Amino acid sequence: MLSTMQDAPLSIAQLLRHGASVHGASEVVTWTESGPRRVSYADIGKRCAQLAHALRGLGVEGDERVATFMWNNSEHLEAYLAIPSMGAVLHTLNIRLFPEQLIHVANHAEDRVIIVDPSLIPLLSPQLPSLTTVKHIIVTGSSTAGLEAPEGVQVHTYEGLIADQPTEFDWPEVDELSAAAMCYTSGTTGDPKGVVYSHRSIYLHSMQVCMSDGPNLAQGDRALAVVPQFHAMSWGLPYAAFMIGASLIMPDRFLQPAPLAAIIASEKPTFAAAVPTIWQGLHLYLEQNPQDISSMREVLIGGSAVPPALMHAFEADHNVSVLHAWGMTETSPLGSVARPPAGVTGDAMWKYRYSQGRFPASVQARLIDDDGKVVAHDGVSVGELEVRGPWITGSYYGVDAEDKFNDGWLKTGDVGSITADGFLSLSDRSKDIIKSGGEWISSVDLENAVMGHPDVTEAAVIGVPDEKWDERPLVAVVLRAGSETTMSELQQYLSDKVAKWQLPENWAVVQEVPKTSVGKFDKKRLRADYHEGGLEVTRL
Amino acid sequence: MLSTMQDAPLSIAQLLRHGASVHGASEVVTWTESGPRRVSYADIGKRCAQLAHALRGLGVEGDERVATFMWNNSEHLEAYLAIPSMGAVLHTLNIRLFPEQLIHVANHAEDRVIIVDPSLIPLLSPQLPSLTTVKHIIVTGSSTAGLEAPEGVQVHTYEGLIADQPTEFDWPEVDELSAAAMCYTSGTTGDPKGVVYSHRSIYLHSMQVCMSDGPNLAQGDRALAVVPQFHAMSWGLPYAAFMIGASLIMPDRFLQPAPLAAIIASEKPTFAAAVPTIWQGLHLYLEQNPQDISSMREVLIGGSAVPPALMHAFEADHNVSVLHAWGMTETSPLGSVARPPAGVTGDAMWKYRYSQGRFPASVQARLIDDDGKVVAHDGVSVGELEVRGPWITGSYYGVDAEDKFNDGWLKTGDVGSITADGFLSLSDRSKDIIKSGGEWISSVDLENAVMGHPDVTEAAVIGVPDEKWDERPLVAVVLRAGSETTMSELQQYLSDKVAKWQLPENWAVVQEVPKTSVGKFDKKRLRADYHEGGLEVTRL
Repeated sequence: MLSTMQDAPLSIAQLLRHGASVHGASEVVTWTESGPRRVSYADIGKRCAQLAHALRGLGVEGDERVATFMWNNSEHLEAYLAIPSMGAVLHTLNIRLFPEQLIHVANHAEDRVIIVDPSLIPLLSPQLPSLTTVKHIIVTGSSTAGLEAPEGVQVHTYEGLIADQPTEFDWPEVDELSAAAMCYTSGTTGDPKGVVYSHRSIYLHSMQVCMSDGPNLAQGDRALAVVPQFHAMSWGLPYAAFMIGASLIMPDRFLQPAPLAAIIASEKPTFAAAVPTIWQGLHLYLEQNPQDISSMREVLIGGSAVPPALMHAFEADHNVSVLHAWGMTETSPLGSVARPPAGVTGDAMWKYRYSQGRFPASVQARLIDDDGKVVAHDGVSVGELEVRGPWITGSYYGVDAEDKFNDGWLKTGDVGSITADGFLSLSDRSKDIIKSGGEWISSVDLENAVMGHPDVTEAAVIGVPDEKWDERPLVAVVLRAGSETTMSELQQYLSDKVAKWQLPENWAVVQEVPKTSVGKFDKKRLRADYHEGGLEVTRL
Repeated sequence: MLSTMQDAPLSIAQLLRHGASVHGASEVVTWTESGPRRVSYADIGKRCAQLAHALRGLGVEGDERVATFMWNNSEHLEAYLAIPSMGAVLHTLNIRLFPEQLIHVANHAEDRVIIVDPSLIPLLSPQLPSLTTVKHIIVTGSSTAGLEAPEGVQVHTYEGLIADQPTEFDWPEVDELSAAAMCYTSGTTGDPKGVVYSHRSIYLHSMQVCMSDGPNLAQGDRALAVVPQFHAMSWGLPYAAFMIGASLIMPDRFLQPAPLAAIIASEKPTFAAAVPTIWQGLHLYLEQNPQDISSMREVLIGGSAVPPALMHAFEADHNVSVLHAWGMTETSPLGSVARPPAGVTGDAMWKYRYSQGRFPASVQARLIDDDGKVVAHDGVSVGELEVRGPWITGSYYGVDAEDKFNDGWLKTGDVGSITADGFLSLSDRSKDIIKSGGEWISSVDLENAVMGHPDVTEAAVIGVPDEKWDERPLVAVVLRAGSETTMSELQQYLSDKVAKWQLPENWAVVQEVPKTSVGKFDKKRLRADYHEGGLEVTRL
């Protein structure tokens, strides 16, 4: 039996039309050296039409890729809306990739146009000769100064290009399953892999951002999007803001604590989103430079686990509620959100809020053990998290990666447990967990325990081969300058903090823990160092 | 370019799985003669599996229709979830239809099974011999007393049927575009027409119910669903509650002010939904029987325009906010919701809240004038409202109704204006508006003006043929018993309330304004009375 419902596709063009008309008075604020710069959503709508005409004029047709190499700003928002709405595909280039990664992803996606901010020209320019498919570079603003384009590549200013274009565009009706935007993961292993979002997935995800079990973004909100637009679509805030009419506050390149504090003072955001290090930096800064930041009803923190101390500090010192969430580029990225069950208070409430949170109805989650069996959601049993849903990726663009999927579910590479009422607690990455005599030891838990020692500034834990137990933990520590703490003193320090059988016997002092391009511990590199004899290991 | 997103259909089964597991502790409360009866969502999940097994056992396969003839209660919720999840189609029969309409819709939908509440057996039983496709009647509870089934129809008790069934069911994965539920409109003209909702449309609509520009239903809410489950799917509350984990409070047949007040006292709802007459009755009752009802953060009112006085009364007397909304069976039903723009206060805020409200991103709206042209959204220009979107019907089941659609848009039959920021104000039904010399006169505005006179208890306005002006208004009034007010006094009373050219010259006193099966003015009947000479018209 057929339904009688209309065949009305979910599309970015509909978000653009809606935001620019019904919420035309909402605004996007971009921070500059001289303070805020404002554009209304009504004007964003007109400028999106102009940008689309300009891109057509440059020959962009069909599903060709138009890339951005940009900070968070109003022009980046225009690219977010106009490029998918005209049927092309937005590719957000991560400005923090290593040069060889950047070249790989731009060529792999076959980017035809790149829109770049003037302040990022020095990062992009040297790589241009290696980009084989790019025909046009568009520099935001009115000057292309500093950009050296290779032969065959045309350079334009953004304002010059759109200036005389019509302010209306007849947005085509698209198949909702078609590609709208793509983002490459900054994976720690191998080349970055491309995730391609559809109009449908972005639209559904935007609804979730405005739902009560999600961030609950609302029309009156002023959302400070610190999380970059090149990082998992700024967690979906730009599209959700246009869906609901929330205003957006974009920090551009001013991501340090002092300008962030100035942005908050000037623009009074009600909501904000960023990784933990941003909030840690802001909190330290505010200790020295007190300021009321309580306009923010809630700050969304994800990307890595939030230290409980940080959550308490924001609440106690600033009357700002921290909302912990889990997701990844592959999940659009909203997976779980740590809203405690209504009515729960005190320690029980905090336990829920420390967790990675609960999945919405649209994201199914399951845990798989070493034998491939589904593990109970009992808050104790541990397995690798697999997820499924309409905004979860089912493959990667143009590469074979079957080992990342299990019967249609995405293998997240995260290991943890889920309670009967659906709350996820992650303990480690599956590739980092240490499998010792059939039991799993969380490298992250050990690291946190070691880093509790006052003389330890960094600690990374990896599994190393062991004849008896298969694997045992090795701790690489960075000691405070001048510290004379010994490895056995550190082991002793752990003795009342972890189970006896988990106590590490392998220790190494290092100058620095190697990091990936996005600043995470590079344990792949650390393991290579170990196997190549690059670590001086003390065995206790 | 293909997206890499998973092919994960939006389905009722996913709502059922999610609500019954993650929100297993939430509950549905059904009111009974002896107070509340409670079932947890975890148990609803088990009983849904049992119901599905039982229906399979009765031979229900594929997309066969299973109808309900029920009040709002936990068994009706189970039918809502289990029937579409097993791939069958739920048909909610309107218990207030005239017998010939009921027979028509049950036969037209080819209902195979009907689930009926014991208290409704007297309404259903006499029609059973006329139902040509029904093979099974299931009576909720444990007794079939009073039901006389025709030959060939088997009768079962609900509890007997499900008692020994397994509490798990392997819900099939459905095409999200397939039929999930159907509801016939109680149209004032012709036979009721069937709207068939898809899994996709119900799922998307449920998300909207939990969004900040919708009712914003949340996990901690306790939603009192007074609006019947046989009336536009109880405005989507049952499905949305399972999506988000809000508890449901179902009044069953106890819809009078006194039991509603008792339900509120006992169950402390935070949210409620009903048509204006329910709230008017409750407000009057509470004047005589004071009670704190402020557990309700918000009451959603739709179905017909809300009198501003009622909104103010609830806010001033009871500290309960009234949320006005517009929709129809054909729109699932959430169309527009009257949340004022953030920060607007005082009279301006009230003007927004009196209106029919603003459409969400998923519902496009336009106004069409007599010439078929799109009218500006300027708050002044008037046209017939047409809507388009993924939960708006694009046809009716098994009938040709092309005149109800315009190039894929649903013609709502409502006439009004829309402001630049998207707020809809309805003035009349298109078939009731009076077209006088090229200008439109709202019959509703005239009725409201006449009903302001203290001696008038009811007034209905229709257009009647006029040689000079094409049409002119006729007012049919019901006077207070014993009143000696004359028609010219009423016309005089209007003279400072409506424009001179709108002043009606045709008047008729009637004993009662004829009503439709759902209690609305039956203007079709009134027009027929006029043309058949059944009205005694005074021409001034």
